[in-house]
Amino acid sequence: MDHTLPTSRADAIALDKADPLGPKREAFTLPEGVNYLDGHSLGPATHAALSAVEAAAKEEWANGLIRSWNAAGWIDLPKTVAAKLAPLIGANPEDVIVTDSVSINLYKLAAAALPLAKAKTLIVEADEFPTDQYIAQGLSGLSGADFVRVESGQGAAKLAEIGGILIKSVVNYRTAVIADMAAHEAAASASGGLIVWDLSHATGCVALDLAGVGAKLATGCTYKYMNGGPGAPAFIYAEAKIAQRLSNPLSGWFGHAAPFAFEGNYRPIEGAARFAARTPGVLSLRALDASLDVFDGVSSHTLAAKARALGDLCLSRTHALSLPAISPDIGEVRGGHVSVLHEEGYAIVQALIARGIIPDFRAPDAIRFGFSPLYIGFADVWDAMDELADILDTRAWDRPEFKVKAAVT
Amino acid sequence: MDHTLPTSRADAIALDKADPLGPKREAFTLPEGVNYLDGHSLGPATHAALSAVEAAAKEEWANGLIRSWNAAGWIDLPKTVAAKLAPLIGANPEDVIVTDSVSINLYKLAAAALPLAKAKTLIVEADEFPTDQYIAQGLSGLSGADFVRVESGQGAAKLAEIGGILIKSVVNYRTAVIADMAAHEAAASASGGLIVWDLSHATGCVALDLAGVGAKLATGCTYKYMNGGPGAPAFIYAEAKIAQRLSNPLSGWFGHAAPFAFEGNYRPIEGAARFAARTPGVLSLRALDASLDVFDGVSSHTLAAKARALGDLCLSRTHALSLPAISPDIGEVRGGHVSVLHEEGYAIVQALIARGIIPDFRAPDAIRFGFSPLYIGFADVWDAMDELADILDTRAWDRPEFKVKAAVT
Repeated sequence: MDHTLPTSRADAIALDKADPLGPKREAFTLPEGVNYLDGHSLGPATHAALSAVEAAAKEEWANGLIRSWNAAGWIDLPKTVAAKLAPLIGANPEDVIVTDSVSINLYKLAAAALPLAKAKTLIVEADEFPTDQYIAQGLSGLSGADFVRVESGQGAAKLAEIGGILIKSVVNYRTAVIADMAAHEAAASASGGLIVWDLSHATGCVALDLAGVGAKLATGCTYKYMNGGPGAPAFIYAEAKIAQRLSNPLSGWFGHAAPFAFEGNYRPIEGAARFAARTPGVLSLRALDASLDVFDGVSSHTLAAKARALGDLCLSRTHALSLPAISPDIGEVRGGHVSVLHEEGYAIVQALIARGIIPDFRAPDAIRFGFSPLYIGFADVWDAMDELADILDTRAWDRPEFKVKAAVT
Repeated sequence: MDHTLPTSRADAIALDKADPLGPKREAFTLPEGVNYLDGHSLGPATHAALSAVEAAAKEEWANGLIRSWNAAGWIDLPKTVAAKLAPLIGANPEDVIVTDSVSINLYKLAAAALPLAKAKTLIVEADEFPTDQYIAQGLSGLSGADFVRVESGQGAAKLAEIGGILIKSVVNYRTAVIADMAAHEAAASASGGLIVWDLSHATGCVALDLAGVGAKLATGCTYKYMNGGPGAPAFIYAEAKIAQRLSNPLSGWFGHAAPFAFEGNYRPIEGAARFAARTPGVLSLRALDASLDVFDGVSSHTLAAKARALGDLCLSRTHALSLPAISPDIGEVRGGHVSVLHEEGYAIVQALIARGIIPDFRAPDAIRFGFSPLYIGFADVWDAMDELADILDTRAWDRPEFKVKAAVT
């Protein structure tokens, strides 16, 4: 752990005062009385994003009408927004496009990779995010590719063995363990396999260098650490040389070289942009576009260092509470959140929420605390851990209303 | 044509005054000086939709944060919005889900239909909307299903002959010709084939009775006559009995029976809802949700009758200008728009736009005038045709700036 770990609230406040990212908090609209440790699930709004949504609705849509596709640059948003996001993942802007959702993008990329891989086998690990596993199953069913589920952490070994297509999160959604991207890519290259990376829990809290580690294909969501808004569109990264060899099975008109020529046959546009499919969802794209401005000039290394330091503080406090952690102590292999286990985890999360502290819960027993580095400070973590200690000490979680499961957890 | 066809501007105004749908116009935020005949491409905003977007952003997202998935009912929006839309297409509410885009939904439905059809052949007509053709090509490439393109109007005959899967628009995007759904479904039933209907240019301007005509599968967009906003989500209709037999290849977590149980294996929810895939885009869904309120109590028969009458007036005027129409004179087989041809169509459209009249252009030579029945009146059509006549008479279109093609037409 970091030697600067605060040991008092005063220490924590001092660290916040010295934090060069501290002033970024002013960009966000966090409500009074809320200590928001759920940015790994849904990031908060920035003032700029709210203004952008309002302008997109009232000016561009209501007044501009159809003319805004050209006049307001709607048609270019999938590329212009991608260009803002690219530095945070270490990608060339032209290798990124904002489109659709992670589920759908995983499908496109894995399907497009099938003809290029030595083995027509889709590999997922048993603790991979469920929708990633479901999509591999669905693609297997339609394409005839084999589907193999391996034990946690065994994806690279399987890839090295058979040379298939591995779908793999850079940061595991439960444990926050960071995968060694370079080692995985080496296994892929040596075996004739390919990896489709899921960057959902990594973008904005982990130092990413997709071009540098030789990543070929990736997707990720933008509603977590990117703060793009509920159900914001996802992105696709496809390295330029391989992109030219890939066929997007979801060959919708926005991936066409000339969508408004209304040609009868599909003819993909150059590069990663061929993975666009749908008419862009403008309201959400405008929110994301503005949300990304807060990252201007901030490197993913800076974001990662702060997230690590906050996570270190959380773990030092939860260790003291004897809560078992499934996230690594070593910050270098841990993403932006920390998960601890408790059999009454759901009720504990509800008790925290009742006190204005918002983490989340992942079935069956994980409490996740997320440390989005642009608006969470050391004092926030300190205070949340104080409340957690009190809730455990007084069994404040042991109330019937905290045990009623909601539809979304 | 309708015997009530107005023959003067005064006639047109009198018809507008007598129109029971006339007061609906007040619900829309149409800008001053704009005569908007492009609702078949992008519908305008209602006041209610703008308010709903603002509330979704400022209250539900910014203040509610992650809690809004439960507290604001975000998680149910794909179903609650579908229930509002269902009466307009003649469907049981539980057979409809709002999700993704038309391109992606066509893919899901056609892929899911493949195992049930007698022939593993995807059929499209040569003048089908391009993205529908592209998606059939992409699905063919991945699944191994055959792809067959037939002449315009020959889809039903091919279906009857081989029993494959026909992807077919109810209203053709260029000509506005309405397909005989019942006759097509009869051909499908008799041959062991299936039809995936594209309702994009039909919903909100044509009398639709999906359950009544025995339709099994359909999708459609909501940003045209439904006024859901730029890139609003699409919908899927899957008749209950057949839905239970269908596997969605894009098996994302929102089509899972228990998405927040985080199970390893995909297990579809009952019925049409299994065709959900992505995390819903809340801002767009809220806009659509509010936009649909203006249709409350309005039947698709009423909408269709008004659209037909407006189209009849347009055609009587364009005939008088000797502009060849590719849309039928007979209103009963014509959707909500009228297309006329002119080799300088693009420049004519720009000249109209410069005068505040907004139709659109479809390459290579079609001018489309759209008659969205809730906010367009007879006087609007009359005035637009007066301007069109003047532009043709004076060759006002013949200016260099009107011939520069924009990215989106």
